[in-house]
Amino acid sequence: MVSTPDAATAGRPRGRSAVAVPELVEKARTGDPRSVGRLISLVEDESPLLREVMALLAPHSGRARIVGITGSPGVGKSTTTSALITELRGAGQRVGVLAIDPSSPFSGGALLGDRVRMQDHATDRDVFIRSMASRGHLGGLSWSTPQAMRVLDASGFDTIVVETVGVGQSEVEIAGLADTTIVLLAPGMGDGIQAAKAGILEIGDLYVINKADRDGASTVRRDLRGALALSQRPEGAWKPPILMTTAQNGEGLAEVVTAIDEHHAWLESTGELLRRRTRRAREEIEAIALTALRQRWGGISDRRTELDTLAARVAGGASDPWAAADELLATHLE
Amino acid sequence: MVSTPDAATAGRPRGRSAVAVPELVEKARTGDPRSVGRLISLVEDESPLLREVMALLAPHSGRARIVGITGSPGVGKSTTTSALITELRGAGQRVGVLAIDPSSPFSGGALLGDRVRMQDHATDRDVFIRSMASRGHLGGLSWSTPQAMRVLDASGFDTIVVETVGVGQSEVEIAGLADTTIVLLAPGMGDGIQAAKAGILEIGDLYVINKADRDGASTVRRDLRGALALSQRPEGAWKPPILMTTAQNGEGLAEVVTAIDEHHAWLESTGELLRRRTRRAREEIEAIALTALRQRWGGISDRRTELDTLAARVAGGASDPWAAADELLATHLE
Repeated sequence: MVSTPDAATAGRPRGRSAVAVPELVEKARTGDPRSVGRLISLVEDESPLLREVMALLAPHSGRARIVGITGSPGVGKSTTTSALITELRGAGQRVGVLAIDPSSPFSGGALLGDRVRMQDHATDRDVFIRSMASRGHLGGLSWSTPQAMRVLDASGFDTIVVETVGVGQSEVEIAGLADTTIVLLAPGMGDGIQAAKAGILEIGDLYVINKADRDGASTVRRDLRGALALSQRPEGAWKPPILMTTAQNGEGLAEVVTAIDEHHAWLESTGELLRRRTRRAREEIEAIALTALRQRWGGISDRRTELDTLAARVAGGASDPWAAADELLATHLE
Repeated sequence: MVSTPDAATAGRPRGRSAVAVPELVEKARTGDPRSVGRLISLVEDESPLLREVMALLAPHSGRARIVGITGSPGVGKSTTTSALITELRGAGQRVGVLAIDPSSPFSGGALLGDRVRMQDHATDRDVFIRSMASRGHLGGLSWSTPQAMRVLDASGFDTIVVETVGVGQSEVEIAGLADTTIVLLAPGMGDGIQAAKAGILEIGDLYVINKADRDGASTVRRDLRGALALSQRPEGAWKPPILMTTAQNGEGLAEVVTAIDEHHAWLESTGELLRRRTRRAREEIEAIALTALRQRWGGISDRRTELDTLAARVAGGASDPWAAADELLATHLE
């Protein structure tokens, strides 16, 4: 059985009373925000209870739409997320938001300053907003984000918005997690550079140019259109639309929601939705399995382990890394 | 046995005649640059011959000093590396250089434009320079760089310089690989920012301020000194010196070599050298073992595999990722 991290290795002491998982899951499913929050804390803490949580949630998952929003700092991600929430709420949807902050690995759970705007929705029981640290034991979004998504999904949120700062790898990772990835741009951000940025042109299902009322918005659109025309998408692939918004006053957000709907319909009709979700599950399974293995052979442990012994032999020239890897696996794979 | 990637999955077609590994290793050990180059190509191609290569090299490895050089673009990394080569050659050393370019994952083996200066050493048989792509199948430096280092080490190079552009994760990774990590700075690069950059203050064994003849060099030194004084190093830890160079004309490089020597003596006397090298071997073994496992269960394969089947069940809500990870491991770990 895959071993879960025990309390000693969890990210932080929980200091909460013992949790009865089935009741917590039941309450989360009725929409109780406090229970949803506690389940996500179990995810963040890499609690040993996670296995039970996930087993109970599984039959109820797969309903929510996952929308990723990524873009450079300053393009208005939080404002856009907030405006998108308003729009989706207007359509009667329950909305969950996971705001991932890759720059502060230790800020798990803290609300960021520039997300204050989201407080507009703080009293709305049908909106759940949570900031999460981007990196767990494993590094990358791979560990905690998809499991937090599962919690929100099974708790009956119709749309889950995952907001990430578009730096380095994280924008590519969010594209792997979301059903629909929105790449957000804005004028005056060094437009040429941001469009040309590695990966940006490949990952967007929707491109949204925010601050459309500012000078330069149409230039960004023209440049982006040109760049997208040059980027190669396979035959029959989705052609990502370019939309203009002024998130500050909600302008253009109705069109964004329509485009999300259209993209979702396309995903369903082509079978791509299932493919994306299967790929996501695949990565999640692998991350859990590899973490469990590494724990077993001591790769993420402080005590002296089998792996250390092998490493000392390789460092001393008595073995080579391939032979040592053989030995390591032979012990665990008969 | 750990399976090596076969020819079909190798990064690029090799188009070379069959290789007799023992002869190639023997010739590399006599200092034949062409044989050294071919061994490194085997590493880059993730050749199935690698296992044999590494087994033959193991008894001859562990002699070379590994010096990492990292810093932001524009601080003069290549110029400094070139000047360091000159200095080390003057002391009779054979020098190997691996220049890692994280920005172009597909540039494996190509020489970068700004490394033209290194052509000074192109006709010197005792200097071997190779540009390498930073990311293999596994991502990160973890896969190919340490194995290329092994090739150079066993081929009798006294010092191996690994040069990386200091962006994101790569500077931290190089610190994990090197015996001595040199962090290079220069005036006029947005000094405050570069010193404060996450990680920079933790990873340097030596800090070198290049372009010392320019305005602002002493300000960089003062700021850096202040920042280092604030950063916490444990009792008895190495106190990283700050050196000034003008690599363009070789000024200050003798002092850099002396500092490398002093740091190396400290590493040896404290046992830290063995600890660092063991840690490096440990990561290398894990990377090989995890890659082999992922190949086995289909995580890095294009055909439909066991993992895909499990992922489809999780995506459909019929299972959860923890249970699926259990099943995956149960098949491979009895």
